[in-house]
Amino acid sequence: MSRFLRQTLRDVKGYVPGEQPERADIIKLNTNENPYPPSPKAREALAAVDPETLRRYPNPTARSFREAAAEVHGVGPDNIIATNGGDELLRLVFATFADAGDRIVSTDPTYSLYPVLASLEGLRFEALALDDHYGLDPQAFLRFACGAEPGSVPAKVALIVSPHAPSGKLFTAAQLTGIAEGFPGLLVVDEAYVDFVDPALGHSLLACVQSLPNVLLLRSLSKGYGLAGLRFGYGIGHPDLIAEMTGLTKDSYNTDVIAQALAEAALRDQHYAADTWQRVRSERDRMHAELTALGCAVYPSQTNFLLAELPPLADGSSRAAAAYAALKQAGILVRYFDTPRLAHALRITLGTPAQNTAVIAKLTPLLR
Amino acid sequence: MSRFLRQTLRDVKGYVPGEQPERADIIKLNTNENPYPPSPKAREALAAVDPETLRRYPNPTARSFREAAAEVHGVGPDNIIATNGGDELLRLVFATFADAGDRIVSTDPTYSLYPVLASLEGLRFEALALDDHYGLDPQAFLRFACGAEPGSVPAKVALIVSPHAPSGKLFTAAQLTGIAEGFPGLLVVDEAYVDFVDPALGHSLLACVQSLPNVLLLRSLSKGYGLAGLRFGYGIGHPDLIAEMTGLTKDSYNTDVIAQALAEAALRDQHYAADTWQRVRSERDRMHAELTALGCAVYPSQTNFLLAELPPLADGSSRAAAAYAALKQAGILVRYFDTPRLAHALRITLGTPAQNTAVIAKLTPLLR
Repeated sequence: MSRFLRQTLRDVKGYVPGEQPERADIIKLNTNENPYPPSPKAREALAAVDPETLRRYPNPTARSFREAAAEVHGVGPDNIIATNGGDELLRLVFATFADAGDRIVSTDPTYSLYPVLASLEGLRFEALALDDHYGLDPQAFLRFACGAEPGSVPAKVALIVSPHAPSGKLFTAAQLTGIAEGFPGLLVVDEAYVDFVDPALGHSLLACVQSLPNVLLLRSLSKGYGLAGLRFGYGIGHPDLIAEMTGLTKDSYNTDVIAQALAEAALRDQHYAADTWQRVRSERDRMHAELTALGCAVYPSQTNFLLAELPPLADGSSRAAAAYAALKQAGILVRYFDTPRLAHALRITLGTPAQNTAVIAKLTPLLR
Repeated sequence: MSRFLRQTLRDVKGYVPGEQPERADIIKLNTNENPYPPSPKAREALAAVDPETLRRYPNPTARSFREAAAEVHGVGPDNIIATNGGDELLRLVFATFADAGDRIVSTDPTYSLYPVLASLEGLRFEALALDDHYGLDPQAFLRFACGAEPGSVPAKVALIVSPHAPSGKLFTAAQLTGIAEGFPGLLVVDEAYVDFVDPALGHSLLACVQSLPNVLLLRSLSKGYGLAGLRFGYGIGHPDLIAEMTGLTKDSYNTDVIAQALAEAALRDQHYAADTWQRVRSERDRMHAELTALGCAVYPSQTNFLLAELPPLADGSSRAAAAYAALKQAGILVRYFDTPRLAHALRITLGTPAQNTAVIAKLTPLLR
């Protein structure tokens, strides 16, 4: 540790992202990338980049991208902030809307980056346990967020990832709107996986954003649009929330000129993206059935991954830990979380049909 | 203002970057871009981007770029952090090495982003005035940084931009090393413009970084490599400083896969970049002479811009303000700072020979 490290960070543990192997022959199902490449329109935008535009600073707010996002979602460009990945939006939320010592709440489990970002800002992070099936009781969460317990205080920011990671469960618009209406603080709904929700459910929080000034939606191009390598996300919310992050806390030029162009092209090609989402949903149904048939307890997922609980080994130890290692040995990378609640589970990103078949083939002997 | 904005930001003014007009026919000499496009190797790297790599998360620390930077500078990859523009590195310095209330020092004038970033982190920013010729007295600065004045305290971080903006003046390695040796805090030397320094001067702070654990150099691809649109900068410093920013405070995937590839290609092509630097230096000499001949007081510059003080108008008001407006009217954008010290000056980025000739042609009648 250097003698320069600030006092408030001396006990903070940094975030550890999932493994990013550089070998191309790995079946990589550990960080929820889309198994399909980005839209051909994004590839055309890449080929059309004019080197002269590289020489100049980019538009500081990704104006053209925001106009596209506004059209796609039926909101105004001033409802949109473009960010260097969804992670930047999360950092900006804390940097803009929470003072040191403020209480921040989420669910347990949740996206493991939240408590890390909170600790970096000196915030107090508390989480309410979801039920055994990763269900959320909106009334209980609202009481928790409002600080109804003796000795508690209202949270400044509440974060809910929906569809939920790592379970894949979708919380309904009615549940989330109910929380937003009763909560005096800012509710961030992290919709990194929302593109994979079955459209038959008619799920949308856009009306909620339009009617409530305390709701901020996080969207990402990483999963739904096959662009994890590009680092592009955005927020949708009330113009005041957007303006404060845009004008105060984001880096002046936070997204680059190439990323802006590719993100816009990919987002505008809803037809292509929707086709990849449908393929993922189809594999989701198949993999859910096959993993269940192998004896796993698989949670219903509206995302591009499945959380599967594996029966423990005869001595009670985690079969999931052993299976993770065996899969890795075979060149298949999935995610294993070494926490009490998740010690018997694997989180498996849905790949191409061939990749998913390979997972089942490898898991079958391990589960017999 | 939203009711959610954190208390500590309610009186903070955001940074206002220079104008970025979208019209391509503007002669844009206001934000110190390189007049020449990036290396053909960067353009080849752009053409070679494999869409499959866009689908996957990038290397979180830009490993391959850091290896290239290490080779170019004769240091180790663990001496390098890659950032989303140099501005991100500055933000990381404050986020990693200064606690709220800490004292931060720089010169006056300096890069106007420093005090904004400091106020966002709740830091106390103080600046020591440079002399009338933008000269720096290292002993005076050291006393100032060490808090030698009654009632003062030692600064946690000192920032010096060298070559200096907006004057263009280079502070010597001996001056800066002397400050670093006597200062107990962290010294950041912002070398965004260092590529334009005359190589005959033999100026380098790399030895200083190798021998002192409290020096961090900021480098940028925006100016020297014609890649302002790409958002890529890096820091060079002791491995502990680098590791703390990399592991704790930077966003997990702060640079994208395309930017990493182009930045590496551009940096490796030192031959091409050095040719653009030489052309800029040659125009620097010419423009210095021509502006001086027109009656301006031009500061000696080791950057890709000139600070020229224009004689006031007959009524004592600023001829520079009027000239800024007249140039803008004619489609030439330069930078005017409406502050007491700079009210009579224009900061003019060095463009192509033809662009510079156009500036002189426009300014000539305004100065007669």
